[in-house]
Amino acid sequence: MAIVLGPNRYGKAEVRLVRVTRDGDTHGLADLTVGVALSGDLTATHLTGDNAGVLPTDTMKNTVYAFAREHGTGEPEAFALSLGRHFVASQPQVVRARVTVESIGWERLGPHSFRRKGDFTRLCQVTVEESFTQVVSGLKDLVVLNSTASEFRGFRKDRYTTLPETTDRILATEVDARWRHLSGEADWAESFEKAKDAMVNAFVNTYSLSLQQTLYAMGSRVLESRPEIAEIRLALPNKHHYLADLSPFDLENPGEVFIAGDRPYGLIEGTVTRDNAPAARAEWYL
Amino acid sequence: MAIVLGPNRYGKAEVRLVRVTRDGDTHGLADLTVGVALSGDLTATHLTGDNAGVLPTDTMKNTVYAFAREHGTGEPEAFALSLGRHFVASQPQVVRARVTVESIGWERLGPHSFRRKGDFTRLCQVTVEESFTQVVSGLKDLVVLNSTASEFRGFRKDRYTTLPETTDRILATEVDARWRHLSGEADWAESFEKAKDAMVNAFVNTYSLSLQQTLYAMGSRVLESRPEIAEIRLALPNKHHYLADLSPFDLENPGEVFIAGDRPYGLIEGTVTRDNAPAARAEWYL
Amino acid sequence: MAIVLGPNRYGKAEVRLVRVTRDGDTHGLADLTVGVALSGDLTATHLTGDNAGVLPTDTMKNTVYAFAREHGTGEPEAFALSLGRHFVASQPQVVRARVTVESIGWERLGPHSFRRKGDFTRLCQVTVEESFTQVVSGLKDLVVLNSTASEFRGFRKDRYTTLPETTDRILATEVDARWRHLSGEADWAESFEKAKDAMVNAFVNTYSLSLQQTLYAMGSRVLESRPEIAEIRLALPNKHHYLADLSPFDLENPGEVFIAGDRPYGLIEGTVTRDNAPAARAEWYL
Amino acid sequence: MAIVLGPNRYGKAEVRLVRVTRDGDTHGLADLTVGVALSGDLTATHLTGDNAGVLPTDTMKNTVYAFAREHGTGEPEAFALSLGRHFVASQPQVVRARVTVESIGWERLGPHSFRRKGDFTRLCQVTVEESFTQVVSGLKDLVVLNSTASEFRGFRKDRYTTLPETTDRILATEVDARWRHLSGEADWAESFEKAKDAMVNAFVNTYSLSLQQTLYAMGSRVLESRPEIAEIRLALPNKHHYLADLSPFDLENPGEVFIAGDRPYGLIEGTVTRDNAPAARAEWYL
Repeated sequence: MAIVLGPNRYGKAEVRLVRVTRDGDTHGLADLTVGVALSGDLTATHLTGDNAGVLPTDTMKNTVYAFAREHGTGEPEAFALSLGRHFVASQPQVVRARVTVESIGWERLGPHSFRRKGDFTRLCQVTVEESFTQVVSGLKDLVVLNSTASEFRGFRKDRYTTLPETTDRILATEVDARWRHLSGEADWAESFEKAKDAMVNAFVNTYSLSLQQTLYAMGSRVLESRPEIAEIRLALPNKHHYLADLSPFDLENPGEVFIAGDRPYGLIEGTVTRDNAPAARAEWYL
Repeated sequence: MAIVLGPNRYGKAEVRLVRVTRDGDTHGLADLTVGVALSGDLTATHLTGDNAGVLPTDTMKNTVYAFAREHGTGEPEAFALSLGRHFVASQPQVVRARVTVESIGWERLGPHSFRRKGDFTRLCQVTVEESFTQVVSGLKDLVVLNSTASEFRGFRKDRYTTLPETTDRILATEVDARWRHLSGEADWAESFEKAKDAMVNAFVNTYSLSLQQTLYAMGSRVLESRPEIAEIRLALPNKHHYLADLSPFDLENPGEVFIAGDRPYGLIEGTVTRDNAPAARAEWYL
Repeated sequence: MAIVLGPNRYGKAEVRLVRVTRDGDTHGLADLTVGVALSGDLTATHLTGDNAGVLPTDTMKNTVYAFAREHGTGEPEAFALSLGRHFVASQPQVVRARVTVESIGWERLGPHSFRRKGDFTRLCQVTVEESFTQVVSGLKDLVVLNSTASEFRGFRKDRYTTLPETTDRILATEVDARWRHLSGEADWAESFEKAKDAMVNAFVNTYSLSLQQTLYAMGSRVLESRPEIAEIRLALPNKHHYLADLSPFDLENPGEVFIAGDRPYGLIEGTVTRDNAPAARAEWYL
Repeated sequence: MAIVLGPNRYGKAEVRLVRVTRDGDTHGLADLTVGVALSGDLTATHLTGDNAGVLPTDTMKNTVYAFAREHGTGEPEAFALSLGRHFVASQPQVVRARVTVESIGWERLGPHSFRRKGDFTRLCQVTVEESFTQVVSGLKDLVVLNSTASEFRGFRKDRYTTLPETTDRILATEVDARWRHLSGEADWAESFEKAKDAMVNAFVNTYSLSLQQTLYAMGSRVLESRPEIAEIRLALPNKHHYLADLSPFDLENPGEVFIAGDRPYGLIEGTVTRDNAPAARAEWYL
């Protein structure tokens, strides 16, 4: 028996980049948070502190800013791919690069004026090896709510079950979704917008008997409409809204006044996939 | 010399209320976080633990939910006033009630479907006594950015000054604004929307020589357009965006690639007021 | 009626400073977050953008780091006073400087090794004018809990009261305390430690009939034991712990299993003061 | 090609439990945040909303509180195992239960008085199947710092490298560590304390040429001293402390005044393992 180094990687996290593009008097704005993680033969630095194969994480940060100037940022997936390919191509010791990008939306107020939208965060994570590319897109922080058209009944009961069945409840969740593309090329902007819209439409239009049912509807709607996507993972917290008990005050409460709970919350996680999708070769959940 | 009880108050904070209104199949949604603080003669509970004059904070919470059912919520200011007046009118030991409401916006997606907007949080704080009412409205979390039309030069320098002058920088801030109304009655919805728009327009349209100048423009624009508002306080963090130094890579950077900084940040705070505004009789900054 | 500039100030917030002192092989560590806010005649920059009287906030940041080198940091109050006096003395346009310091504790692990403690954050805020000095010390983030010896009964009831009386509950709070010193000189380290201990001891040893009673005990204990302190303000959230109802499972729960609630929470705020304390001449609550 | 349901699970997250034990007048306190996630054949609820195989997440919450009363909590690993085994044994549709526990430490102040420590959060995650058990222990939020005895030099350089080499820097990190046990039985309390101490001692006593070297030292020290542990994963952010440049003020700065940076940060992740460790059969990183 010996103690050995197992899987490892290193990089720079949360590089905050704001990129202004100047098209005459009209400016554009990209607001990105970039992370880079590199893998390869890093045994020496772990065992002896020999850093000959270690490109500094500071250099990764510099590269993010320099690439934003040299190549622009474009869509998050394209920017991530260009960074990932750079590290793999230029650094012989690097076997794999993983680049993540979070992108915040800004609404235009004027030629050079913007307001942060705050409705969701767009995500992507690309994994690049010399002869392998994997692109995952997604989003988080998107909060949606149906004030009716949601039931929860017919469930299993045991000694510890006290929850009453309901045929009318609020269904609310904060969507965390990641979808894996079949290839390393796509119209990233259109793909993202359409996938997001498919998810949201499925949430809105599904009469829900369980949040799992809604999850599956959201995932399958994305796959049905987007042939470039192999599979999708969803993590949906069930943001509970408890009907306030107003009976002590001789008041009825027919689905109108709710206590919004913080903790605990249900957490429903699931994958919807194509049965012939190639297996993921690298972790693809951020 | 004796040790005595000084100013004090107590109440319930962060009561999370979601109010659904059902107009046939079309639902409305209000998402409020309410705080109540009561003042009066509370000496006994402090000195001896005699709670005869202490209405439980749990009761305040119940009252919030019951009032949401009995009276609806309406505009945040109106809801806060109805709660404040209730406590002062019904509890002889209560001399003053302060009620705060934070309101989150949701965008309609369907008859009973909504998406959280996240662009800002609307605020109000009312103070009610038997013969005094003060209403403060406001907002926070509103992030705006001008990618040019901002200078900072001609400033004072001392031994510790290294900042270069600039005639072109990003100006970005997260607006925290509170405005005090002249009376306890107004068209709260219109007043809020117009005050917000006046602030944002002033930010967008001011060629800025300092964030103070922008602050004053924002505040005075609100007072000019809204006669019902006595004064306005603004706290504007200067969210610094540092031009990335790309010269080591033989790259110019003409105002395009920025490092978004977290800490430290400038903090510009100021009040714009009418010279004949009656003095605030109660603290009015949340 | 005219629109005019009201009270204002500006400065740098959240300057993160780690100061290592090297006494041979044994190092010391101070971990401070500093804020500076200056007031004076700043009308020009607000009205016309003339910055001739505006020392950049970047300079304030530089001054914090330079002073840490030139003078060391010492106790937070002393460091804040030296910074505040510097700005008032060296900048004729500055009438008042307010300096805040948050200090995090680290436990020694070795001659140059440390572990962050995380049990509370020490605070101070000094206000300096040419012939006026005010020092406020305090702390936040200190969470204390009594698992018994707390009652809440005999309280006022109205239509909306449902809370049962209790003679045994958990009392828990996250202490936010600020105390104002009578003068600008004290043994800051000893004063802080003893004031903190007095507060904690009062919390531990008070059989509590209300959180207000505990608050008053905490505050008065500080004033009784520390003659250099004029008054103290406490903001004590009542961190509710709800006894879990296990009766559906035929289980008793004699004060053993609790649900720790996040929101809402009670909030008890009060001041304990000396009846002959000179009035505060500047806001003293952070 | 068909669209199908892939891997999924569901449960209750962040169940906040405070458990008081009463041994006469002396009380004990456990502060746990518990999460439960169940897997099995959940196809029906996803595809048709048939919940016959769905035990409500509300029931999982109830079970946590009831078990805390019936069995006590004990060590986090033991409590998690009892919960996981219960769900697998009592629910035929449940194939796998994953239970996570976060535990916060409190320092005793008196027979029934406590102060929250805040120095780290203890973690565990157990995975239970009918004939498989996996236990992962760990911690997060532990911040340690060496003010010297850290170098970073001899690293690889490319076009984008500007970082100077250094033979004396601050090394600071916030430890996130998870270690997988060889079996489902151990003296959990002793194992945790000794593993934590081994990690901290390795951090303190390693003259560091890279954070990777420190990581490997921390991990291997744990495995060397704890035969019950199969492998350990560490995620170590490099919390950068930048030496303040005081040369514009004619001040030297020999490793004394540092700017503590928030973002970006390096992130070093690695596993140290036994070469004969059985493979993990379930994900084991929280």
